[in-house]
This record gives sequence, C-alpha cells and structure tokens, in this order.
Amino acid sequence: MAKFELYAQVDVPLSGHCYSIDICQNGLSNAENLQNYVVSQQALIVTNETIAPLYLNQLQAHYCAIQCDVVILPDGEQFKNQASLFAIYDALIKHKHHRDTTLIALGGGVIGDITGFAASTYQRGAHFLQIPTTLLAQVDASVGGKTAINHAMGKNMVGSFYQPCAVLIDLATLKTLPEREFRAGLAEIIKYGLLVGGVFLDDLTDVLKNGLSPNSTELPALIARCCKIKADYVVADEKEQGLRALLNLGHTVAHALESYTDYKEWLHGEAVAIGLYCAALLSYHAGLTDASLVTRVEQLLNYAQLPHKIPKFIDIAKLKQLMMLDKKIKNNCLRFIVIKKPGDCAINDSITAECLDHTLNNAVSGD
Amino acid sequence: MAKFELYAQVDVPLSGHCYSIDICQNGLSNAENLQNYVVSQQALIVTNETIAPLYLNQLQAHYCAIQCDVVILPDGEQFKNQASLFAIYDALIKHKHHRDTTLIALGGGVIGDITGFAASTYQRGAHFLQIPTTLLAQVDASVGGKTAINHAMGKNMVGSFYQPCAVLIDLATLKTLPEREFRAGLAEIIKYGLLVGGVFLDDLTDVLKNGLSPNSTELPALIARCCKIKADYVVADEKEQGLRALLNLGHTVAHALESYTDYKEWLHGEAVAIGLYCAALLSYHAGLTDASLVTRVEQLLNYAQLPHKIPKFIDIAKLKQLMMLDKKIKNNCLRFIVIKKPGDCAINDSITAECLDHTLNNAVSGD
Repeated sequence: MAKFELYAQVDVPLSGHCYSIDICQNGLSNAENLQNYVVSQQALIVTNETIAPLYLNQLQAHYCAIQCDVVILPDGEQFKNQASLFAIYDALIKHKHHRDTTLIALGGGVIGDITGFAASTYQRGAHFLQIPTTLLAQVDASVGGKTAINHAMGKNMVGSFYQPCAVLIDLATLKTLPEREFRAGLAEIIKYGLLVGGVFLDDLTDVLKNGLSPNSTELPALIARCCKIKADYVVADEKEQGLRALLNLGHTVAHALESYTDYKEWLHGEAVAIGLYCAALLSYHAGLTDASLVTRVEQLLNYAQLPHKIPKFIDIAKLKQLMMLDKKIKNNCLRFIVIKKPGDCAINDSITAECLDHTLNNAVSGD
Repeated sequence: MAKFELYAQVDVPLSGHCYSIDICQNGLSNAENLQNYVVSQQALIVTNETIAPLYLNQLQAHYCAIQCDVVILPDGEQFKNQASLFAIYDALIKHKHHRDTTLIALGGGVIGDITGFAASTYQRGAHFLQIPTTLLAQVDASVGGKTAINHAMGKNMVGSFYQPCAVLIDLATLKTLPEREFRAGLAEIIKYGLLVGGVFLDDLTDVLKNGLSPNSTELPALIARCCKIKADYVVADEKEQGLRALLNLGHTVAHALESYTDYKEWLHGEAVAIGLYCAALLSYHAGLTDASLVTRVEQLLNYAQLPHKIPKFIDIAKLKQLMMLDKKIKNNCLRFIVIKKPGDCAINDSITAECLDHTLNNAVSGD
C-alpha cells in the first residue's frame, strides 16, 4: 500500500465551528486515516463520471462498516445545476439518510460546491466532508464553506455558507489530473499571489517560470500556503460582509464569461485567468496602478500557460449585462476588486462605465 | 384608513442577529409602519393565489418607491416544492435582484417556509421579511427561522435555519381567514399549551371551550404569548441540537400523515392535531403518563373542532415507513416527544416497536 504522509494541517478556527484542512500524500488509500473523518452511521459519496473509476472503489471500501451510498454525476460545470442537486436529495431520501448522515464530496470544485449545498440543506444540515481532487478545489473551492449551484442565467446564484467538518487533500490525486485542469488551478494560486504580494509572489513567479507539475517538490508547501491565505480571509469574514470579497479578485468578469458560454468554453480557473488580467487592466485604466502591473499579470498567466484575453466572439455589451448579476453589487452598483499593487488589493465602487468599457474592449483578443 | 395599533413586540435575541415579532392591528395598511421593514432598494413579494387578491395590491403600493416584484404561487402545501422554489429564483434573476434585496413572504406557513428558503439561498442569503396571514403561521411557522420545501417522499426534507429581519403579524388578516384554517392554527396553540402547562393551559382550555374566533378579545395576547414561548425555545437552541426538538411535539406522526396523503388531505394544523393525540396516547402506552392526559388532549382538540383519530384508510405499516424519514432520528433510531404531564414534555429514544404499533392501531378511527 502507498505510504501515508501528512504534510500539513491548516486550522480554520471559525466561531462556533473549528475544522482542519489536512494536506497529505495517499490519504485516500489509508483506511485508518479515512475513518477518522466520518463519525456517522451513514454516508453518501458524491462524485462524477471521471473521478469514480479512479477513486470511488477505494474510498467506498473504507466505509464498508457503515451504510455508504453513492451518487455519480456527469462531469462538468454545466452540471452544477438543479437537476444534479435534486438527484442528490433523491438518493438521500430513497436510501433513508437521516440528518446525522455525512455527505462526502469526492471531486473538483463542481462536486464540492453542489455536495456542500446539498449537505447544508438536507434536513436543514447534514455533515459534510470535502475530498478535493483537483488543484483548483484543493487551493480554493474546498476551503471556506461557500457552496452553490449555477442558474442558467448566472453562476453560483443559489447557495449557502456551510462549513465542512474537514477537508482532506490527498496530493496523490493530482497525479491523475489532466494537465489542463492542473493549469486551471494555477489561476487561483496566481490570484493569491496578487492578493498577498511580497516574497510569496516572487517565489511563485520563479516556480511558475520553471514549470510547476504535480511532481514538483514545491507543491505541498504551495498548496498549504494557499489554504492558509484563504483560511485567514474566511476566519476574518466568514459570510463575506467585507474583507472576504477580495478573494473575488478576477471573478466578476470570470463568472460572466462562464455564464455567457453556458459553462462549456472554459474551466473555471481559465475564466479566472482572463478575469485576473481584466482586473489588472481595469486597475490601470482607472489610474490605480501603473502599466507594469498589467505586464506582470500577463507574464504570470503566460508562465502558467493560461489564457488572458477575452476571445473576439464575446459580445461586450452582453457580457456587461451578465456582470450585473454579480453578487458583490450593492445598491445597484457594480463593485470590483482592484489591484493597486501586488499585496494591496481593494474593493472599489467607483469604476466608471467608460473605464469598464475601455478595459473590456482592450482585453479582447486581437487574433 | 383603518387605525394602526401595535399590541405587542416579542424580541428574538439570537446571538449575532436580533429581531422583533410585531403583533399589530392594520399593520398592512399602514405605510409608515411598513416602510420600516424594508431597507433595500429591491423587494420581491411571494404570495399565493388566495392571498394576492386580498392584500397584494395594498402591500405593493407601499413599496412603489423601490423596485418591487411579485411571485404568485398556487395555494396549498402540495406546492411547497421544487417547482415553486425555482419559480422564485427565476423571478429574482430575471428581474436582476441583488444580494441586498428583500424577500417578503405574504401568506401562511407554506409561503413563509418556501420564501425563507429562497431568501436563505439566493446569492447565499438575501434579506427576508415574514408577513404571516394565517393563525398557524402567526403563532408558529413564521417564528424561529426554520425554512423548507417538501420532497414527494417527505415533509420539509430540504431546508435551512435562516432568521427573518422581522415578523409582521397583522391581526386584521385573520378576518379573511377561512374558519377551517383558523381552527388548524389552534392545533399549534394547543401544542404550546401542552408544552407549557399550568395556568396557560387552563386559560387556553377555557378560551377554547367558550369558542375562539378572529374577533375574540383574548386573541392578541394569546398570539403574543405563543410567539414568546416559541422564541424562548429558539433562543435557547436555534439549530435544534436539543431543547428545540420539543416544539416537534405531535409532528412525527403529523409529517408522515401529510406525506402519506401528498399534503392534500389535511391542513398542517389538522395533521398536527392527530399527531398530538398520538403523542398523548404513545406517552400513556409507554407508561409515562396516565389515561387522563389522553382524555384531556382529546377534549382540547374537540373544543377546537379538530380531528384526533387516524382515518381507517391509512395503512399503519406504510405510515411507519414514512416516519423513518423523521428529522429527529439519531443513529437510525426514532425519537419521540412524549408528554409526562402538561408542562413536562421530553425527547424519548426508547419507545419500543410494540408500543408504537399499539398506539397507532389504537389511534385509528373506529368509524
């Protein structure tokens, strides 16, 4: 059996509920480790058609002593919807799961978000365990308790704040992750780099320049650091009344792009990459930063082999319409996360319509 | 214009969120009063086809200075479902409601439950105002922040704990309430009587014996008292980790009966009436109380002209199957709220299968 190794534990000490993000190697194949996470007599594993053949059997085998049911959803952001949600509820009710059951999300951000939402609402709240298997979910989506499903007209329009009982990050799962998915995860890591700046961003730049892969020795510490950065924001502002909104850097444009293309054109991280570039460009056009920041963001995204331009087929007027569903809107006014410099981002409610237009038009690919 | 009068304010001082239940006469026709409740620039009123012709226009007129949209659902517990919930989300998104919008529930418990659930999950939490128009919603459903929709296989299977920003109880709305609905509300009041006992139950017995109507002078104080009783339980145990479960007295059987009959046979309060009788009978058969309690509960329900027997067409084996979806179940074990005596109820996890069978078979109508 592959050797189990615990790299790091990041605590998320929320008022009323404290839990741990455990970053390890081969945690999914270690029975003793796994059984610590489920205290109930019932569990429901939610996963997708891509992950199921890889990890479902071994996970389910560890829970053979309790009632352990499974829901396998189709893979993709376009299935983070009403139909998938109610498929989970139906399975829970059909198999007579009680309020003290545990829902286990085995997969990427889509699986984590929808399973978390189902857990938060089944009988008004069941236990919830996150086992993120993509880089993006490991550094971002699985941390912090945001759950959601998409609406045809807008991303994450229906959701809740609901914390898991634990997050189990098994780095071994990255070995089976397609390269495109791995790169998409780098977008959220670059986001943290821009939020934090300093040595972290410098080191990250070097790592990306040299090429980061699932085998890189830098990866465990990098993931742990990202989890810690996010956890700090979440602990400071669990329900996003203020500070936590900074984690939305790049996401106003990203969510609109995803919604525009029915979640089919980009992986979430790819859309975030374009959104980060737009955020830098917007900050520059608003006179909040200088041109070197735009170049730096573009360079980081290039190192990570991520897109940064809005493709020509996107109609900017329609994109702006979709941005009006952004959850940060207050008093009918769009609010953007702007970058003054790496390590100094802020929420801004005074971006003019002209500045936004100018930015989006400039962000469109010349190809 | 009908004179506005504030009878009572019951505070619900939860940690992190304090709100008030305002019990008044003609609050719905008083613009100044109404405007205090909505601070956002957008609102969505959710009501049903029965209530809309009675109160919608006057309510909407008071919010003409802001964006105020409306969703009108069909009337009935069988519509507290997925389709109605998504009709609310669709309207919110179609009309570009932001996270700081206010959802206003204008109606009975069904409208309050589903609107509250929509509010708790739209963009992870919008403002929520309860305007209950039935006696049952005024004394019970609108208080305490339980929200839900039903699943075809079980009552309130999907929901959340989400507190309103305020509850506005306008006693004038009871004047248009059908008598059957009014009586159904009395079931929850009798439940409070059994939970609290003492002088409250004695007084309630007298009031019911003499006949209670929407015009009774005792009504405002009775409603305020019930709200206070429920608020005390909710403040002590918001998320139902323990004590709050006592409010579920009569509801294990009630929910199963409602689910059995697709929510079409009884109003919720009528099912609760039968459930209260079953709870008394169960407590007696379990040796926890004497026969006089059963007689007393039957008498209270008779005074209120409520049913107490399970009709013959109900198959007890199937009813028990449905009870296995009860949300109080822990470690696969049904837990019942039992009545040792009025004012002394408890949660009990040691009712035998024989005792339950005996109770349910004895509760079936001989007609």
